[in-house]
Amino acid sequence: MSSNSKIFFNNKKREKYSNIAIGLNTLIFMKKHNFFAGPAVLPEIVKTKASQAALDYNNTGLSIMEISHRSNEFVAVLDNTEKYIRTILNLDDNYSVLLLTGGASTQFFMTAMNLANKNDSIGYVDTGAWSSKAIKEAKILSNVEILASSKDKNYNYIPYDYNIPESCAYVHLTSNNTIFGTQTKKWPDTDKFLVCDMSSDIFSRQIPLEKFGLIYAGAQKNAGPSGVTIVIVRKNILGKIERTLPTILKYQTHIDKKSSFNTPPVFPIYVSMLTMEWILEKGGIDEIAERNAIKAKTLYDEIDSNPLFVGTANKDDRSTMNVTFLINDPNLEQLFLDNCTKAGIVGIAGHRSVGGFRASIYNALEQESVDTLVGVMKEMAVKVG
Amino acid sequence: MSSNSKIFFNNKKREKYSNIAIGLNTLIFMKKHNFFAGPAVLPEIVKTKASQAALDYNNTGLSIMEISHRSNEFVAVLDNTEKYIRTILNLDDNYSVLLLTGGASTQFFMTAMNLANKNDSIGYVDTGAWSSKAIKEAKILSNVEILASSKDKNYNYIPYDYNIPESCAYVHLTSNNTIFGTQTKKWPDTDKFLVCDMSSDIFSRQIPLEKFGLIYAGAQKNAGPSGVTIVIVRKNILGKIERTLPTILKYQTHIDKKSSFNTPPVFPIYVSMLTMEWILEKGGIDEIAERNAIKAKTLYDEIDSNPLFVGTANKDDRSTMNVTFLINDPNLEQLFLDNCTKAGIVGIAGHRSVGGFRASIYNALEQESVDTLVGVMKEMAVKVG
Repeated sequence: MSSNSKIFFNNKKREKYSNIAIGLNTLIFMKKHNFFAGPAVLPEIVKTKASQAALDYNNTGLSIMEISHRSNEFVAVLDNTEKYIRTILNLDDNYSVLLLTGGASTQFFMTAMNLANKNDSIGYVDTGAWSSKAIKEAKILSNVEILASSKDKNYNYIPYDYNIPESCAYVHLTSNNTIFGTQTKKWPDTDKFLVCDMSSDIFSRQIPLEKFGLIYAGAQKNAGPSGVTIVIVRKNILGKIERTLPTILKYQTHIDKKSSFNTPPVFPIYVSMLTMEWILEKGGIDEIAERNAIKAKTLYDEIDSNPLFVGTANKDDRSTMNVTFLINDPNLEQLFLDNCTKAGIVGIAGHRSVGGFRASIYNALEQESVDTLVGVMKEMAVKVG
Repeated sequence: MSSNSKIFFNNKKREKYSNIAIGLNTLIFMKKHNFFAGPAVLPEIVKTKASQAALDYNNTGLSIMEISHRSNEFVAVLDNTEKYIRTILNLDDNYSVLLLTGGASTQFFMTAMNLANKNDSIGYVDTGAWSSKAIKEAKILSNVEILASSKDKNYNYIPYDYNIPESCAYVHLTSNNTIFGTQTKKWPDTDKFLVCDMSSDIFSRQIPLEKFGLIYAGAQKNAGPSGVTIVIVRKNILGKIERTLPTILKYQTHIDKKSSFNTPPVFPIYVSMLTMEWILEKGGIDEIAERNAIKAKTLYDEIDSNPLFVGTANKDDRSTMNVTFLINDPNLEQLFLDNCTKAGIVGIAGHRSVGGFRASIYNALEQESVDTLVGVMKEMAVKVG
């Protein structure tokens, strides 16, 4: 046993470490490796610029939080955010980009409300907790047809083998399932348009845009901080329903008012703009996707080769954003968490509904952080393996 | 004519100044006096702490925007925000405090949706543009009875002489009208509960809490930055309607989930918490109300005594938050704006729908800023009067 390994087994020493190694507010001189599932890691440059703008935006003598949303300064922020999103996704004028609030949970009902009549049928593919919540809300407003579900295996795979009835107004998918660590890799071959919750993998890879009528995403994973929701909608799918909706619940309102029907969430939008800028500076989606693939491969390779750990998702359906895994011996769970904490790793515990571990490796997470986690896993295997 | 006054009339000199005196991004070494109507001025200490937290929250090595909304750190922020609001307003357990998104514009329909059935009647007092919008949204969901309106005089007064029919489920008021510079000073004597949009004067003065069933306010005037909406609801008015609502549109959902049904707007809530902390440190509502009264008196006294200017609101109904006024000679408008800009004053133009001038003098605006504005007004009177 090396002198280092004694740390893990000498209770007295563990106690000593536990005083400084629990919670976020510890080992404050160490770089943090942020694996939170959302709100999640932001690029360093984004945090630096956001911090400056909170105090004094662009040498105006005012915080960006203190200026009118109708000032030239903020209108430019809105315009740039939209422009960057259009550039990143290569959107044409058939699509509108909206910056809203309320998160995916609001889109769960707004999509059905705006895109289907009461007697219409919407096709849903049920791939996890968030799909199920989307289905629950749609059922209040329209008919729902569950086209396929992976609930039979605790959502550890993505079902692809299903038919889409002609009666469906459209098909709703959840592209990435944060809790279960699965990700949709193939899109259905259909003439129906897709509506997709991309909260946890938007801007992480190329997508066949022409298939999508509407994409929505809470920003707090790959697109900024919490408090802003991105909606990308193909305009020709709107205006076909009979319901009378509150003004603010109509997509058309936000298209007409350029996301300023009411006061937008100024600071979250600004930070999202910075995040989009960062994506473009990194080289856009292709570069980001390549970085993401390498990070995911690094971590999955370790899970597959390390005798202590096992992945929970079907290999073909593994997410490049949320890597879910278990430790074979549950008695080692706390030790692993403690070792992670000592290495500056935070947010590695699995979702409260499933347990185990989850490493969220979104766009802004650096390879260095994945390497650090893999280092902790390797070291554990050597010491207790 | 003094040498200084030449600045105002020598076109060559004006041109020279106009190069450095237009827009926010000018005279960058001068303290700014921020009269924007919202998003609006924040206390200096709030900006400083917000800026620090955007970079590194509490020495965690992480931005507050990067931590899970279910972490102990953020749950403490949510709890403190609620606790501070309860302390400031002296709320008892009959009331819930919710931190939502979507602004007052969302509350316009959510109130009716949650508090009235389709065939119920809701009484509205129409005191301006925001009342009218609230009425428009309620009409989609229930019956609306306009109890009184000041539209006949372009909303320059608050109507108090009206009856509340027994048939009304409740009465909706807008306590302060940002665009028209009026403020409700007396509350109706009724056994119906009041629902009130207090977006622009919440936390500015004492209110008879027992009269209110629900109070809502976008935070971006007196309670923080844009992106968070405060709802204070007396629990016993809920649970009485027959509609089936999307989960996130029910107040009860947010009560049950302590404002974390979905990912809350982390940064805006944090800044609101800091703003509440600042109110308490200043001595709470009584102290704040006294400061506000002095600021308002300073400015209204100048408007009433300065021959160049005239107030637009009925004197008894003047707002202590938004002071609306005109310059008698329209030819002097641009000159006044230029002089304001040179003094570091921003956000003084009236709402785009009414023109003239509007000085928003919310809680966080310092007496010094009002004094600066009054100084510019006095100087103009001396020079052109």
